Amino acid sequence: MAASEREFVRALAARMPRSAAVRVGIGDDAAVLGDGLLVACDMVMDGTHFRLEECGPARAGRKALAVNLSDIAAMGGRPEAAFVALALPAGGPAGMADALMDGLAALAARHGVAVAGGDTNSWEGPLAVAVTVTGRPGPRGPLLRSGARGGDVLAVTGALGGSRAGRHLDFEPRLAEAEALAAAGEVHALLDISDGLALDLARMAEASGVGARLEAARVPVSAEARGAARSSGRTPLDHALGDGEDFELLAALPLATWEAVRRTGLPGGTPLTRVGEVTPLAQGLVLVRPDGGGEPLEVRGWQHRVP
Amino acid sequence: MAASEREFVRALAARMPRSAAVRVGIGDDAAVLGDGLLVACDMVMDGTHFRLEECGPARAGRKALAVNLSDIAAMGGRPEAAFVALALPAGGPAGMADALMDGLAALAARHGVAVAGGDTNSWEGPLAVAVTVTGRPGPRGPLLRSGARGGDVLAVTGALGGSRAGRHLDFEPRLAEAEALAAAGEVHALLDISDGLALDLARMAEASGVGARLEAARVPVSAEARGAARSSGRTPLDHALGDGEDFELLAALPLATWEAVRRTGLPGGTPLTRVGEVTPLAQGLVLVRPDGGGEPLEVRGWQHRVP
Repeated sequence: MAASEREFVRALAARMPRSAAVRVGIGDDAAVLGDGLLVACDMVMDGTHFRLEECGPARAGRKALAVNLSDIAAMGGRPEAAFVALALPAGGPAGMADALMDGLAALAARHGVAVAGGDTNSWEGPLAVAVTVTGRPGPRGPLLRSGARGGDVLAVTGALGGSRAGRHLDFEPRLAEAEALAAAGEVHALLDISDGLALDLARMAEASGVGARLEAARVPVSAEARGAARSSGRTPLDHALGDGEDFELLAALPLATWEAVRRTGLPGGTPLTRVGEVTPLAQGLVLVRPDGGGEPLEVRGWQHRVP
Repeated sequence: MAASEREFVRALAARMPRSAAVRVGIGDDAAVLGDGLLVACDMVMDGTHFRLEECGPARAGRKALAVNLSDIAAMGGRPEAAFVALALPAGGPAGMADALMDGLAALAARHGVAVAGGDTNSWEGPLAVAVTVTGRPGPRGPLLRSGARGGDVLAVTGALGGSRAGRHLDFEPRLAEAEALAAAGEVHALLDISDGLALDLARMAEASGVGARLEAARVPVSAEARGAARSSGRTPLDHALGDGEDFELLAALPLATWEAVRRTGLPGGTPLTRVGEVTPLAQGLVLVRPDGGGEPLEVRGWQHRVP
């Protein structure tokens, strides 16, 4: 039987070979090697993460790098080098590989990231781009998803939902924002919202061994989520919780850090919204309705079915 | 117009962003980061690097890792961690992802490599597996392809050609052999033969700014290359020079290292054959015929066309 991506990855983490050369392996936004090096590795594919016909190769290339930079941001790190493995459709338009790499390189250059290697292939399949990014942790070391503690403030950057209307291609990885959070004080847990706030909050809670209360009325709902709700028959909140591909940060912060960062603000005026709090494990995951009542948070979001 | 892979990569190397955090970037078997960390990144795809229907997911997964371990061997390094990005066909047989990862993990475990992260996706396209491997250089530092000098002995491990009959799926990455070469003495240049001896020798010569004489009668021709020649209308030598996917090592060695390693032999009895010598740049690439005459070495081998 096919498994969900979450079950598959959980099982892999338990059985794949380990080594002392790896401090943090499968399960966080990026791995942490023995000397602290961060390694993120994400693939994007035509028809799944973008539609090449609509967005063109340059934006596809940009996204392939951006999702990895978002992973490095989610570790509180600084990216250094990118490696790009290409599966190019043999019948693609002339110049598509150059355009793709130029789109990727422009984003790399803006963040001081070298494109240091990779692999170029053509085939009869659609375009797939796998990127690996290495980086260095910030002064506080790597910020994992597993350190959330009861009483922490849960905060998210930006606005959520409706990303597939276009933001998923052009979002800015929250590198400066993550750095500012860590500069403001301790950050107990950090991850990027790639599969929807509900699912990614559940991942943080599971990794940290805690519960969480998410306040529906505080979740920052994007204009695109409201737009999508007009035709989807779902609520804007539903889109904000489950659409995924937001690439915003979800942080568990001690109150002192939350208050410090609220005074200074984030770089570029990026919003940071308090959406709830971390609770003891026994309280589970609770969605607090606007009327103050609570219900179990339905953990759903984007997951690949794994054959 | 579509470019050859070699032209495309050469142009990329010239224009992609660089950084002081990367010592060796695009163009060698693996990159070398500032602290010496090696990073190799290769993708294998159904229909191009394997036929899933024939080989099954476990051997495909094994190959995806093996080609990267071969790159680390070609840098004289020891692999530490692997990162695996999967594009799985949504309609694939149940259990294919587990089988793939188990095939990969068995090889990883044998070489002490941790599987430390990655990305799991499903889509409507065929199977593609992108693997990134990090490693550490040996005591002599990273062995580049750019250090060959006039007078060096050119030597190759194993036997060449006809790999697609099966060896390309089950080859043993030459990690122990590379380590033994470096233990025997200086190694001026090293790479793995992935696209055919002729093309990969040309790459070494170009990177090193040298010429080379390759002696046709000395090239170790595999039994599979002889077999392939019986039906292809090409000579066994032609297969050995151009088939690619050999994943054997090509080394440029000072005479002292060649003589030392000839005395000790390589681990497991792997053959090491002297196939020619490095010459000054002006002499170009020469194939010495069995009758002693020379002709320009035709530089051909497996190259992807890049759209």
